Amino acid sequence: MAGDPLPVRAGDGEDVLVALVALVRDDLDACNRTIVEHMHSPVALIPQLGAHIVAAGGKRLRPLLTLASARMCGGQGGLPPARLAACVEFIHTATLLHDDVVDESALRRGLASANAVFGNKASVLVGDFLFARAFQLMVAEGSLRVMDILSRASATIAEGEVLQLVTQNDLSTPESRYLDVIRGKTAALFAAACQVGAVSAASSPAQEAALSDYGMNIGIAFQLVDDALDYAADEAKLGKTVGDDFREGKITLPVLVAYGAGDAEERAFWQRTVEESEQTEDDLAHAMDLMARHGAIRTTLDRAARSAAEAKASLSLFPDSPIKSCLLGVADYTVSRAR
Amino acid sequence: MAGDPLPVRAGDGEDVLVALVALVRDDLDACNRTIVEHMHSPVALIPQLGAHIVAAGGKRLRPLLTLASARMCGGQGGLPPARLAACVEFIHTATLLHDDVVDESALRRGLASANAVFGNKASVLVGDFLFARAFQLMVAEGSLRVMDILSRASATIAEGEVLQLVTQNDLSTPESRYLDVIRGKTAALFAAACQVGAVSAASSPAQEAALSDYGMNIGIAFQLVDDALDYAADEAKLGKTVGDDFREGKITLPVLVAYGAGDAEERAFWQRTVEESEQTEDDLAHAMDLMARHGAIRTTLDRAARSAAEAKASLSLFPDSPIKSCLLGVADYTVSRAR
Repeated sequence: MAGDPLPVRAGDGEDVLVALVALVRDDLDACNRTIVEHMHSPVALIPQLGAHIVAAGGKRLRPLLTLASARMCGGQGGLPPARLAACVEFIHTATLLHDDVVDESALRRGLASANAVFGNKASVLVGDFLFARAFQLMVAEGSLRVMDILSRASATIAEGEVLQLVTQNDLSTPESRYLDVIRGKTAALFAAACQVGAVSAASSPAQEAALSDYGMNIGIAFQLVDDALDYAADEAKLGKTVGDDFREGKITLPVLVAYGAGDAEERAFWQRTVEESEQTEDDLAHAMDLMARHGAIRTTLDRAARSAAEAKASLSLFPDSPIKSCLLGVADYTVSRAR
Repeated sequence: MAGDPLPVRAGDGEDVLVALVALVRDDLDACNRTIVEHMHSPVALIPQLGAHIVAAGGKRLRPLLTLASARMCGGQGGLPPARLAACVEFIHTATLLHDDVVDESALRRGLASANAVFGNKASVLVGDFLFARAFQLMVAEGSLRVMDILSRASATIAEGEVLQLVTQNDLSTPESRYLDVIRGKTAALFAAACQVGAVSAASSPAQEAALSDYGMNIGIAFQLVDDALDYAADEAKLGKTVGDDFREGKITLPVLVAYGAGDAEERAFWQRTVEESEQTEDDLAHAMDLMARHGAIRTTLDRAARSAAEAKASLSLFPDSPIKSCLLGVADYTVSRAR
C-alpha cells in the first residue's frame, strides 16, 4: 500500500477489514487526507506527535465503520462521510493520548506510546488540540445533528473513563458497573461512529438506531476481548504489554469472574494484588492460573460473542449486500481476534 | 453573598468587577445555575472535582466579559448570553485542569489545585468532560457561529500551550514567539468570550471585531501581568506560589528582558538556572535582583499597560454607558492588580 498517506494495517485474520477497506477505498483515502491536512499547525510538535499516533496506523476501525454505515444507508445525504470519519478518528486519537497518560502506558500498537516519546504534557495538550480540531471540522460541515452525537459521545467517554478510575482497585464493583465503564469508555464512540455515518446518508430513523445499536454492541464486544487479552494475549501479536490491567488494579470482567468464583484463599490473593496493589513477580502468572481454573477468560469471551451476535442481529433490517457482509464480518472479527 | 450558588469573589482593588457584576447580576446568576446544572453526571467524582475548581470561585472574568459584551451590543439577539458565558467558563475550567497537570501545580487561587486533591488522572479526564459538555451546551443553543468561534479558540489555546512547552528552557526564544504563546494560551479565550457575547446580541460586524480586539488585548495584558507577578507578587495575595515559572524554566517576558540586558556572568546564571534547570535555594532571589537591576518587571508591566490602552481604544465606537465604563475599568484592572 505504498503511496497511501496513512496506510491501514491489517494483520492475520483481518481479511474482513481488508475487504471493507476495498469497498470504501476512495472515502478512506479522503478521510486520511483530511486527517493529515487538519493536523497541520504552525506549532510543529503538534503534527509530529499527531503523526506518531495517527499516521503510524492502527486499523482505522472507527472511521471505517462511519464510512461503511454511510454506504449501507445509500450515501448521498449531503454530508461527506469521509470528513465525519476524520472527526471520529480525531476524537478517538485524543482519547488514546489522554488514556496513555492516565494509564502511564509505555506501548501503543506495539510501538512506544506518544507519552513515552514526547512526554505526558505534550500528550495532554495535543489531545486537547485534536479534540478541538474535530469540532472545528464538524462546524465546517455545519451539521448540528453530527455535533450533537459526537459531543454527547465525547462527554460519555470521559464519564466512562472517570468511572473506571473510581472502580480501580475495588473488587466489590458489580458487573453492571463494569459494563457501564466499557459502554462509556469504548462502545459509545463505536455507536456514534456508526450513527454519524447513517446521518451523513440521510438514513431513516430506524436505520440510524440500528447502526447505533450495532456500534454499541461491537464496541462492548471489542472491549471485553481487550480485557480478556490483557490476561491471555500473545504479547508480540497484540502489540501491548500483557498484565497492564492487573498491575494497575483495573477491574475487568476476567477479574470479577475469578474473584467471584474464588475460595477464601483466592479472594485473599485478589485483595492483596488488586485492591492493595501489593504484587510480586509471580503474581500475574498465578492470576492467570486462577482465571483458567474458573474459566474467567472463556466467560469473558462468551459474553463478547453474545454482544457480537446482538450487533449482527441489529443489521437485520438492511438488505444483503457486500457492505453488510463486511459489517457482519467485523462483528465476528471483534471476537475472533482473540483466538 | 450568601445564597449565591457560586459566589463571585472580588478582592481589594476589584471595585470595577463588583460594579460589573451588579450590572449583569441576573445573567450571571443564570450563568452560574447553568454551570451547576450541566456539571451534573451520574459519576459523582465529576461534579465533585468540578465543584472544587468551578464552584470555589475565581473571578468569573471570562463569562463576565461575555455578558458585558452582549449587554453593550444591546442584547436581544436571540441567543441567551448566560448560556454562552457558561460554555466559556467550562472551556476555561477544562484548560485550567489540564494546565495544572502539565505544570504540576499544587496551588490554584490560593487553594490546593484539583490535581493535588484528586490526582492528575481525574483532572485530565474531568477536563475532557467539561470540554465535551461545553460543546453539548453550544449544540443545544444551535449557533454555528458560536461553535466556530469557541472551537477555533480551543484549538488556538492548545497550540499556545504546546508552543509554551516547546519554548520551555530555551532562552533564544524571541519576544515575538513569547507573544504568540500568550496570545494563544490566554488571550484567544478572552477574545472569544467577548466575541460570542457580541454574536449573542446580533451585533454589527464592526462591534464584534472591536470586542474581539478588546478581549485579545486585555488577555495579553492579563498574562503579561501574571508573568510579572510570578517574580514580584505577594504570595498570600496572589494565591499562587511565587517563582513557579522560574522553577519550571518557563520563558516569560521578565526573563527575556533580564537575559537580553545581562552581562556575560548574568547570562551564565540564566543559562544554568533556566536552560539547564540547575537551581539552588538562593537562585530565585538572585533572579529577582537581576530583574530589578534591568527593570524587567517594569518593562513587562509597561507592555501590559500598552495592551490595556489598546483594549480601551478598541471600544471607541461604542457610546458612553455604565457597561462601557466597566469594560474600560476592567482593562485598567488587568494592569492595576499588580500594583
